[in-house]
Amino acid sequence: MSDKDPSIKPWGGRFTEATDQFVERFTASVSFDQRLYHHDINGSLAHAAMLAKVGVLTTDELSKIQEGLEEIRAEILSGRFEWSISLEDVHMNIEARLTDKIGITGKKLHTGRSRNDQVATDIRLYLRDELALIVTELSRLQQGLITLATREAHTIMPGFTHLQTAQPVTFGHHMLAWNEMLERDYSRFQDCAARLNQCPLGAAALAGTTYPIDRHYSAELLGFDRPTENSLDSVSDRDFAIEFAAAASLLMTHMSRFSEELVLWTSAQFKFIELPDRFCTGSSIMPQKKNPDVPELIRGKVGRVNGHLVSLLTLMKSQPLAYNKDNQEDKEPLFDIIDTVKDCLKAYADMVPAITVNADITREAAMRGFSTATDLADYLVRKGLPFRDAHEVVGKSVAYGIAENKDLSEMSLAELQTFSTDIEQDVFDVLTLEGSVNARDHIGGTAPKQVLAAAERALARLNLRG
Amino acid sequence: MSDKDPSIKPWGGRFTEATDQFVERFTASVSFDQRLYHHDINGSLAHAAMLAKVGVLTTDELSKIQEGLEEIRAEILSGRFEWSISLEDVHMNIEARLTDKIGITGKKLHTGRSRNDQVATDIRLYLRDELALIVTELSRLQQGLITLATREAHTIMPGFTHLQTAQPVTFGHHMLAWNEMLERDYSRFQDCAARLNQCPLGAAALAGTTYPIDRHYSAELLGFDRPTENSLDSVSDRDFAIEFAAAASLLMTHMSRFSEELVLWTSAQFKFIELPDRFCTGSSIMPQKKNPDVPELIRGKVGRVNGHLVSLLTLMKSQPLAYNKDNQEDKEPLFDIIDTVKDCLKAYADMVPAITVNADITREAAMRGFSTATDLADYLVRKGLPFRDAHEVVGKSVAYGIAENKDLSEMSLAELQTFSTDIEQDVFDVLTLEGSVNARDHIGGTAPKQVLAAAERALARLNLRG
Amino acid sequence: MSDKDPSIKPWGGRFTEATDQFVERFTASVSFDQRLYHHDINGSLAHAAMLAKVGVLTTDELSKIQEGLEEIRAEILSGRFEWSISLEDVHMNIEARLTDKIGITGKKLHTGRSRNDQVATDIRLYLRDELALIVTELSRLQQGLITLATREAHTIMPGFTHLQTAQPVTFGHHMLAWNEMLERDYSRFQDCAARLNQCPLGAAALAGTTYPIDRHYSAELLGFDRPTENSLDSVSDRDFAIEFAAAASLLMTHMSRFSEELVLWTSAQFKFIELPDRFCTGSSIMPQKKNPDVPELIRGKVGRVNGHLVSLLTLMKSQPLAYNKDNQEDKEPLFDIIDTVKDCLKAYADMVPAITVNADITREAAMRGFSTATDLADYLVRKGLPFRDAHEVVGKSVAYGIAENKDLSEMSLAELQTFSTDIEQDVFDVLTLEGSVNARDHIGGTAPKQVLAAAERALARLNLRG
Amino acid sequence: MSDKDPSIKPWGGRFTEATDQFVERFTASVSFDQRLYHHDINGSLAHAAMLAKVGVLTTDELSKIQEGLEEIRAEILSGRFEWSISLEDVHMNIEARLTDKIGITGKKLHTGRSRNDQVATDIRLYLRDELALIVTELSRLQQGLITLATREAHTIMPGFTHLQTAQPVTFGHHMLAWNEMLERDYSRFQDCAARLNQCPLGAAALAGTTYPIDRHYSAELLGFDRPTENSLDSVSDRDFAIEFAAAASLLMTHMSRFSEELVLWTSAQFKFIELPDRFCTGSSIMPQKKNPDVPELIRGKVGRVNGHLVSLLTLMKSQPLAYNKDNQEDKEPLFDIIDTVKDCLKAYADMVPAITVNADITREAAMRGFSTATDLADYLVRKGLPFRDAHEVVGKSVAYGIAENKDLSEMSLAELQTFSTDIEQDVFDVLTLEGSVNARDHIGGTAPKQVLAAAERALARLNLRG
Repeated sequence: MSDKDPSIKPWGGRFTEATDQFVERFTASVSFDQRLYHHDINGSLAHAAMLAKVGVLTTDELSKIQEGLEEIRAEILSGRFEWSISLEDVHMNIEARLTDKIGITGKKLHTGRSRNDQVATDIRLYLRDELALIVTELSRLQQGLITLATREAHTIMPGFTHLQTAQPVTFGHHMLAWNEMLERDYSRFQDCAARLNQCPLGAAALAGTTYPIDRHYSAELLGFDRPTENSLDSVSDRDFAIEFAAAASLLMTHMSRFSEELVLWTSAQFKFIELPDRFCTGSSIMPQKKNPDVPELIRGKVGRVNGHLVSLLTLMKSQPLAYNKDNQEDKEPLFDIIDTVKDCLKAYADMVPAITVNADITREAAMRGFSTATDLADYLVRKGLPFRDAHEVVGKSVAYGIAENKDLSEMSLAELQTFSTDIEQDVFDVLTLEGSVNARDHIGGTAPKQVLAAAERALARLNLRG
Repeated sequence: MSDKDPSIKPWGGRFTEATDQFVERFTASVSFDQRLYHHDINGSLAHAAMLAKVGVLTTDELSKIQEGLEEIRAEILSGRFEWSISLEDVHMNIEARLTDKIGITGKKLHTGRSRNDQVATDIRLYLRDELALIVTELSRLQQGLITLATREAHTIMPGFTHLQTAQPVTFGHHMLAWNEMLERDYSRFQDCAARLNQCPLGAAALAGTTYPIDRHYSAELLGFDRPTENSLDSVSDRDFAIEFAAAASLLMTHMSRFSEELVLWTSAQFKFIELPDRFCTGSSIMPQKKNPDVPELIRGKVGRVNGHLVSLLTLMKSQPLAYNKDNQEDKEPLFDIIDTVKDCLKAYADMVPAITVNADITREAAMRGFSTATDLADYLVRKGLPFRDAHEVVGKSVAYGIAENKDLSEMSLAELQTFSTDIEQDVFDVLTLEGSVNARDHIGGTAPKQVLAAAERALARLNLRG
Repeated sequence: MSDKDPSIKPWGGRFTEATDQFVERFTASVSFDQRLYHHDINGSLAHAAMLAKVGVLTTDELSKIQEGLEEIRAEILSGRFEWSISLEDVHMNIEARLTDKIGITGKKLHTGRSRNDQVATDIRLYLRDELALIVTELSRLQQGLITLATREAHTIMPGFTHLQTAQPVTFGHHMLAWNEMLERDYSRFQDCAARLNQCPLGAAALAGTTYPIDRHYSAELLGFDRPTENSLDSVSDRDFAIEFAAAASLLMTHMSRFSEELVLWTSAQFKFIELPDRFCTGSSIMPQKKNPDVPELIRGKVGRVNGHLVSLLTLMKSQPLAYNKDNQEDKEPLFDIIDTVKDCLKAYADMVPAITVNADITREAAMRGFSTATDLADYLVRKGLPFRDAHEVVGKSVAYGIAENKDLSEMSLAELQTFSTDIEQDVFDVLTLEGSVNARDHIGGTAPKQVLAAAERALARLNLRG
Repeated sequence: MSDKDPSIKPWGGRFTEATDQFVERFTASVSFDQRLYHHDINGSLAHAAMLAKVGVLTTDELSKIQEGLEEIRAEILSGRFEWSISLEDVHMNIEARLTDKIGITGKKLHTGRSRNDQVATDIRLYLRDELALIVTELSRLQQGLITLATREAHTIMPGFTHLQTAQPVTFGHHMLAWNEMLERDYSRFQDCAARLNQCPLGAAALAGTTYPIDRHYSAELLGFDRPTENSLDSVSDRDFAIEFAAAASLLMTHMSRFSEELVLWTSAQFKFIELPDRFCTGSSIMPQKKNPDVPELIRGKVGRVNGHLVSLLTLMKSQPLAYNKDNQEDKEPLFDIIDTVKDCLKAYADMVPAITVNADITREAAMRGFSTATDLADYLVRKGLPFRDAHEVVGKSVAYGIAENKDLSEMSLAELQTFSTDIEQDVFDVLTLEGSVNARDHIGGTAPKQVLAAAERALARLNLRG
């Protein structure tokens, strides 16, 4: 029986003409969905166990199926399995091989299910496992950030708004800002994992099945919280993929922000930090270059993930129920997001602890740019000026400083007093960098004391993940 | 003092040249952020109360500020407030008016905060309230779907996959599929609301403030769960907007799917349902037309929301910390998503209960297209054939039916037996539509009994929302 | 010398630590950019010839390089070439192999260029060739549409607006609407090809080179119209990729619209057409199914291409000049768009000529739904009623027809005259389907005469492509 | 007759129930499409003139219509026109007002057309005019860039790749890189304008009309190149909006890249340039701040335009022919893109000529970072070393320089010779910044001579635009 005979297809009975060869390749998914094999086999094992429980399969049939499937898993793992485009997808490839192995009993496995609920189950199982791996890498990166924050809790750098020097902050404080973003990412991934953890098996093609199946039992075997509520929805729902993609886009947006800063900070103009050579590459033409390739590449990869999110949303737009072939397009973007996110997290989890801060340079940069101007304004408010008036006094001092090329702390008391007679000798305490950061001493503030406390809280949350 | 004098700006002290008039308009946000006025005033009231609590304001100053702000709220509500482009945004407009009213004390309100934490607080407060309104409309639509599902629990229609007749389902079952999608949307909006409910006030410009503020107190006054953990993150975070946009995109994706089906079902080819005239419009040239405008428009509006999601993601891509002016672009997309989602939900919550089903037509359509072919296959499996073999037998019967223009139930026993001698007289029980739907009698299946039970469970969940 | 020694990298001189192994894989592009090998070799051949022309290479050196590169091309074609991740990309892999083969002369090839201008040249050359292949498939599909339009120029079907029956049109007319969309796609691809056809070689790393290169000569050898104007722009520009992606998104949008219609038309409710079995697949559970997989899949693939467009736009957002590593992310989306577009066009170019129209059914559908109502209105206008009044008369007739279940052509003259006494016996001429379509007899109208003329014009344009 | 009577709608004849009030507002477009009034009137004037030419209107009727429409235009311009939501859109509002004014003749204007072809015509006319305005601002910005490039043709700055100092370039050269991007944008807008310039009038609802219209005549009157070829396509095509959006996204991507650089260059770390105060704003809390608001805001606005592009693509995805109500969603994104692009171009066209370069600082920055390392490598190649070997020698010199904190030009000959005995006294000529830039003396290179020549060519192209 050749591949050209329509009857080789598991659905060929009604057809009079074989699938066009190009169409066969064009519509097949086995080249990319074979990575689901492990979860496909697990899903089949649970389905078979359920069929045996309700009497559709005998104990003997179940055993044969179990042995057959485990042999197939071993074949795939060892690279001996021959994937066939003619068999379209991972499901048919495995089922056909099972029938090769155990004969007519293999054909009984598909009783009471359809590829529609089967693939919906496989993807959820797969994504659930991958989410766990992602969270592991994410936690490792957070661990690194918290350690770095603790180490650099007293290191002063300029804080920027509009990329203009704004106020002095500590390097540790900045690292914890990144950690907060990741903490929200963690929380979104957890929500996504909880929401997807329902079992579509038993929805069959779209309407359920006439066999006396026990959906609670298969759900339980696969570690799902419960069976899904509606068969039509079960086979057509791809919310979990889109929700995951959206959470991943946000994570990658955060990673792109870290990356932008790392690229800035390693530039000759900033020189705030050093990245170890092993995370950088050089130039084929400019021998002096040490390029921050890893941050740059990760900054670029946010586009990839945003793009996949758009793909998935576009894919589902105005699809009528229930399953349509369009949905086959859900897998490649999903898989690529997973791979991208895991790689980017790994790269940063490895790299962040190796960041070296040039504390002299960051301190010097914080000195420039009138970064303590707000402190002067606050000082004047404490002397009784309304904030808006204090703001004006300082604005004029800064204009003078720019003209004279002097920072506020470099002006004499006499000079300062030309702007306000409220200024006295004690002003110089608030114009130091340490004075400035230490004064921001409340939850969320940049005072080293607060940074260390925040790092401890962050670590405690991390340790709760178990 | 003219608008051209830089010193009218609250930040003008350092500047020697007035803002260009076009630039002033180009960079101002008051035309669209004035809708935040209510929450801006509430935020200011909480901030003032906190300043009084920690002794930065006197009780008397606090009272003046409270009275002034409430007067301003009344002015705005009544349309008497004059918004000024020169004052850039809602925050400055209100503060300037406050100083007009109560003099120097008005200038003290901004002590210990910045526009950066102020706007971050305002948007969160605003979005939190809007989320509550969205959920109300969402619940109303779900209520309508569940009622309709209950009413049409026994109405048979064709279930489709690939838009080809697949198996008979009930109309109620189909409505509950839509309800499941909305249930997940509800759950995502709840997660989003919970995650955003942290108070950025006190982050000030980016580093916290030197005043002895009590961030827990202001958070509590505004109904937030807690203050945010990191000041740099607080002023630069727009995750909540993106997470909300992503949840809204999924909701609108679902709405586009419902819409597609409503458009199909009202076409002359389907005629499954009728929409009341008041949700339709006609044609200026074709007098016979009754167009399903509302579903079509809603189907189109998914593009709008997806677009805004992309806007926000693009906006935040690779922005260095902390606040940058780019972020002003967060508001228009966010506001338009809110308006769009509320309108679309309202339109459907109003319309869905008024849908009339043409049950004769849906039943007739289910009869066509061999929709009970799977039932025949299952019958054969119960007679002992492996599923894959049964599939082939039925495939051949269908091919015969197409050639002879006969549905399976229209064939004689003799005809059916030419495909398999296992077929007996009792086959005709499973080939009826009622037999087919009733047989899918498990959780999530299309049997009317199951649909009614699922509707009850759905209603119970809805009633828990309180 | 092991891979771990930094000096194996062509840029290793300045480095003291080897690249991390994971980082090496993470930052390498050879797994996907090796498909550029053919154009990379062509670019190198042109560069070498230019270097020889200006005296930087001797004739003998040029010959060695030419032979070496052609041997490498043969090795790659035959699958004997060993790609190395350590050598990062296609360029380094080929150059390293060249030096293996011809020694020190191989090292001279990179004189006066950089990977930055090299890769920019390679992608343009590659995309230019792929655009030609895409246009070939596009033309083949257009040919099929025009042929089908000619064949079905007299076949009447309902024209829809809002998916409601609007007016009768001809099937051929509908096919030519699709062809118009593709005609614009063709024109956009041509513009894109013209705009990209400038040669970046010689821009070197970013600033040009100190060698006495002849950029016009290399441009000419490679079939470019001219060298690019600015070296900084040349190495950082990816407009051509984005412009191509945008043109491809529009093409795929059109394909999604055709697909939607094909899916509708093959449904049991429409039955307007048949697709041959070889472009359809069946169901693993429902033996009667014949699913329009190819149109569904293509409808889904628009998401993929739109997603890649967003990827590329996001990638380039706010990148400072000149080349950044982010840009490595341009290739995978570009390549996948090319593959997707070519496959989808091929599938439709093969399938469209095999579409069978069920002319009886389309005609019957056009009869239903008062599709000649506009013709009645126009008739009344010709009798002297203002259009808006005629519209109202017909609206009332239709309301009557719905109540009585009669099409306009089924009403008696007496019945029709109750709505307007202007109606006379000759009204029945305009109420026929043929009368209706024939009357739309102007350029762009649906009259069969016009359709045939339009098909001829379309064919003439197609034949001009040469 | 109240608004609630369905017969007030121009399509009300067939309806028995008035439109729901909320639905009326929800589906109306007049709040945003009224900006099309000018082009709607022009389209109607051309249509009326054509109807008169073919005898459907009398000369007298035409005159009345012309006078009526011009009066309406004047009413709208002066703000006296009362727009009604009940009349749905700009078209109905104007037509209803015309009938108010001139009675029954007003109702004849709609003969032989539909809102479907009317709106398609209006948008094309509107976009064509806006494209002309966009190109005017674009040209003004290019003029500014070319002038700045000429002024700063000899100003040396560091050229960056990976944001690491790469090689010295001239500021003028950098400005011309931006100009090249805009030149391509110009060319894309021209292509878009040419492609849209076809007249849909006469396509009527979807199939053409039974009146003896002269589509060539109306096309000519409106300045279109020709009538569109296919009526179904004419009313459903929105390619021109998407193509424009894509071109605008690319322009905004370029603007975001310029903006990123301006933000970097005005930071305390770079200080390469100064922006005049009138394009900057300050901080409400930090008195020293001068924020580059305009570049930041424009950088953010790329998100807006990319988002609209996605909106439009999503909108059109899988819409069946011909017109669907979804398409009403095309206008708001299109209008917002137009406004955004014009504003951003104006802001930069005003600002760019006022940029001041801190030439001392850019020169000093170019000195740092071994920017002439490539020149040393090229020097060694001229002395006979293969390029790859020269690269290694320089790499080692740089490593030494980093360790000793010396730039290449600061090393003694003896020091340099420890890396290669080929180095002689003349090496110091190539290690100067001027030597380096002057040596890149070929088309597209950074030599001041080449920059001036490129600026001249750019200006000549600009002057050709007419």
